[in-house]
Amino acid sequence: MSMDITFLGTGSAYPSPHRGASALVLRTEGECWLFDCGEGTQTQLMRSPLKASKITKVFISHLHGDHLFGLPGLLCTVSLNCNPQASQPPACVDIYGPQGLRRFLRVALVLSSSQLLFPYAVHELVPCGGQSPAEGQLDPRVTDSSDQLHPQEQPGQTIHLDTDSDCYTLFEDKQFTVKALRLFHRIPSFGFCVQERDRPGRLNVEQLKKLGLKPGPLYGRLKNGESVTLDSGQVVSPGDVVEPAIPGRKVCILGDCSSLVGEGPAKVCQGADVLVHEATLAEGHRERALEHGHSTPHMAAAVARACRTRVLVLNHFSQRYKPLISQKDSEEDDGGEADVRELKRQAEEALSGTGTLVVLAEDFLTLPVPLKRP
Amino acid sequence: MSMDITFLGTGSAYPSPHRGASALVLRTEGECWLFDCGEGTQTQLMRSPLKASKITKVFISHLHGDHLFGLPGLLCTVSLNCNPQASQPPACVDIYGPQGLRRFLRVALVLSSSQLLFPYAVHELVPCGGQSPAEGQLDPRVTDSSDQLHPQEQPGQTIHLDTDSDCYTLFEDKQFTVKALRLFHRIPSFGFCVQERDRPGRLNVEQLKKLGLKPGPLYGRLKNGESVTLDSGQVVSPGDVVEPAIPGRKVCILGDCSSLVGEGPAKVCQGADVLVHEATLAEGHRERALEHGHSTPHMAAAVARACRTRVLVLNHFSQRYKPLISQKDSEEDDGGEADVRELKRQAEEALSGTGTLVVLAEDFLTLPVPLKRP
Ligand SMILES: [Zn+2]
Ligand SMILES: [Zn+2]
Ligand SMILES: [Zn+2]
Ligand SMILES: [Zn+2]
Repeated sequence: MSMDITFLGTGSAYPSPHRGASALVLRTEGECWLFDCGEGTQTQLMRSPLKASKITKVFISHLHGDHLFGLPGLLCTVSLNCNPQASQPPACVDIYGPQGLRRFLRVALVLSSSQLLFPYAVHELVPCGGQSPAEGQLDPRVTDSSDQLHPQEQPGQTIHLDTDSDCYTLFEDKQFTVKALRLFHRIPSFGFCVQERDRPGRLNVEQLKKLGLKPGPLYGRLKNGESVTLDSGQVVSPGDVVEPAIPGRKVCILGDCSSLVGEGPAKVCQGADVLVHEATLAEGHRERALEHGHSTPHMAAAVARACRTRVLVLNHFSQRYKPLISQKDSEEDDGGEADVRELKRQAEEALSGTGTLVVLAEDFLTLPVPLKRP
Repeated sequence: MSMDITFLGTGSAYPSPHRGASALVLRTEGECWLFDCGEGTQTQLMRSPLKASKITKVFISHLHGDHLFGLPGLLCTVSLNCNPQASQPPACVDIYGPQGLRRFLRVALVLSSSQLLFPYAVHELVPCGGQSPAEGQLDPRVTDSSDQLHPQEQPGQTIHLDTDSDCYTLFEDKQFTVKALRLFHRIPSFGFCVQERDRPGRLNVEQLKKLGLKPGPLYGRLKNGESVTLDSGQVVSPGDVVEPAIPGRKVCILGDCSSLVGEGPAKVCQGADVLVHEATLAEGHRERALEHGHSTPHMAAAVARACRTRVLVLNHFSQRYKPLISQKDSEEDDGGEADVRELKRQAEEALSGTGTLVVLAEDFLTLPVPLKRP
């Protein structure tokens, strides 16, 4: 099954003509999951090969505007453009994010008299004290969502930290388990870990033929891990004819942060195929980065190292870092421009010897997440 | 004094890569007033020659998302980019719009933990029953803004219809009087009328010299409308040496509507230099336009005719009408494309004989509003 990540906005703080505000799509066959939805995400989606109508789940890392302000408009536009005759509107769009998200979305949709052609539910993560300075924590009165639901809103879950695993379990289905983990930022922030289930190894058909086994129920029994005795008395064990299981892929997408919080995040993200981590500013601005709850490439690399990730994607760049291919403004030089490749070099330097690949996110970059054939 | 209008978004319903969501700037020397602020307005501003930091007043015609959802992000970005050392942050950004706007903005800014470097105030217009179908009217509980203000929020006025003039007076200062007027739409909508004050005529210096008058206090007296007696006994009356007063310009910017409400709007907009009116769909889709509370070119033209406007600008086009200069997608043809020039032809047809000029709004078009020298 194919899986890829398309970056729709890779800039920090606000959208600009050079970099959109934070948003990316994790696509598996048939479904798109949106991670963060800064202002302008719907327009970035239109510019990409993706279809907004395929979005079935949304994950918001934290409530800063550059990750959030595009969400009401995105839902409205998906609804406006979904033609109930031509295509099935989503059964229900599930939206996960920090406490306060439900009220934000409800107030925006109710006051703008927005009606949707599909239901939605907001599942809120309850942050813990240590995820931000005290002034970054919202008064429970402003996150209160006990008033009347939006007409298309379905009651959402309230999800608390599971203290055993030190993470939040969002959902598990046939294909995926999705968890959230705690991050430290100016306001409570979360990362998301998408773990695909392992899939049983394929039958080695050539080997089966050699042994004289014909397609039939025996194939299924072998695939399920049972040994089989042939008419000849020979015992065929699954290890002889079934290839090793294909381990599920793990994609970790972290929100803005200057550090992980607790032991859970590094455990949950262990062995990630792809870790998307912010690197807002270069090492030379480390103090400034910390002050704003952000990371430098070395800090991102330290997380990648602790989690032994195969690929580290740097993301959420200060708008001073122009994209490598800046189609429009090549002649412009505002003096404050900086080279985004420097961020990559710094992360690579900190990861030398680990084999971790460093990738720079760019708007509209699609990164495949290949199956791990052992 | 120069005055111009720059269109930042001329599309209806949602922003697209072809047309931004609703926003335009009326610029007079030194100040920018923003009318409507759909999602992506801040990015459109960055693409334009205008500076977001010059925005001192914002007017929101109605609370549909395509006119509103860009406002929280715009304020945040203006604040992030204002350098208190280099330039004065605005004394206070005054925001005018329908009841409910105050709560929308407050909830968005509070939940996103957005701090601003300048204060803002939301002055709410109280709509009347006849501005929308009953289902378009908001429950007073959802527009209630009696809870705690945002830290940078200053108390705003609540502005009721002045039943004598059948309009709302927003403010009057040395240069301008700004009023709002009632429109009918799916939800209550408003238009704004910016009336510049008349300015006294200039002295005809050549004529004064001929009469032997030298610059001095007599000039001032003549300019103020007094007659003056020369040493020769000759009486010079202002009419001899002062050119006629220059009438103030009038710019009317209307929100989404299928009609004006009451007698006030046509009176207030009478003789407008520029009338910006929506024309979402062509005549062939009149039923659909009405159903959604929108206008066709003939309907816009009827308002222009009733108000005897000099220039009618058609605006707020269905996204099916691609811009004339579509830089990116010239090769694309999705079949649903329509010719925006047809909208202009239809308005011109309905205005033939009136002398009213019809202009098509386009993103980034700047329309000068010249002084009316009599
Ligand atoms: Zn951010
Ligand atoms: Zn943030
Ligand atoms: Zn509209
Ligand atoms: Zn509207």
